[in-house]
Amino acid sequence: MSENLQDVLDPNLAEKLVFNEAGLIPAIVQQHDTLEVLMMGWMDDVALARTLTTGRVWFYSRSRREYWRKGDTSGHVQYVKSAAIDCDSDVLLIKVHQVGVACHTGTRTCFTGRELPVVVGNENEDAKETK
Amino acid sequence: MSENLQDVLDPNLAEKLVFNEAGLIPAIVQQHDTLEVLMMGWMDDVALARTLTTGRVWFYSRSRREYWRKGDTSGHVQYVKSAAIDCDSDVLLIKVHQVGVACHTGTRTCFTGRELPVVVGNENEDAKETK
Repeated sequence: MSENLQDVLDPNLAEKLVFNEAGLIPAIVQQHDTLEVLMMGWMDDVALARTLTTGRVWFYSRSRREYWRKGDTSGHVQYVKSAAIDCDSDVLLIKVHQVGVACHTGTRTCFTGRELPVVVGNENEDAKETK
Repeated sequence: MSENLQDVLDPNLAEKLVFNEAGLIPAIVQQHDTLEVLMMGWMDDVALARTLTTGRVWFYSRSRREYWRKGDTSGHVQYVKSAAIDCDSDVLLIKVHQVGVACHTGTRTCFTGRELPVVVGNENEDAKETK
């Protein structure tokens, strides 16, 4: 049997998870101590199995149709600290230690400096409006 | 003109954003002060326009094919504090004040108590391995 076992997801988990029609599930990546949301990537069952068993974050690139281990090209490695699934089993949250920056553009997170203008909501004002 | 203007996204933003084949974009929702990742939902252009302009978070439900404003049924309202897009313009990060719990199951976040076993990665150990 030549199959690489770290590529095989626990069958109970594989059955529970809801992958999309392309066989992928979104993975939110968060810095474990500062709790910054660093990025979101996509994993298939193999990328997730590798992420859970090797201490490093793996993704599946839809555009390049290949697996990639975060940091192999850039040096901006993500070390896995914990992982969780959501209530619908269709989203992953991976807490990591991010070396350097998460974004290929050089910003700390993929959201840094990309704010949108919003109308800020406020619990008290809302309560006032309804009185 | 009877169109409700808050349903229309800024055309520059609409052009920039990358919606999936179903016209949706994932929105990560994070508590603005504790930085807990609360949940991930999906928005179309209308739900996003409402989220950016009303102070409350709106989603589009794929299964029910309808808009829903978080908290209208449960009371677990999300007040918008800030919003950002990622470097590829295909993910949103919405920071909110969450009233009560985010998850319909009653847990604080949709990830609470749903941890997966992982092999923890460590920068120093990795360095050791490569020596």
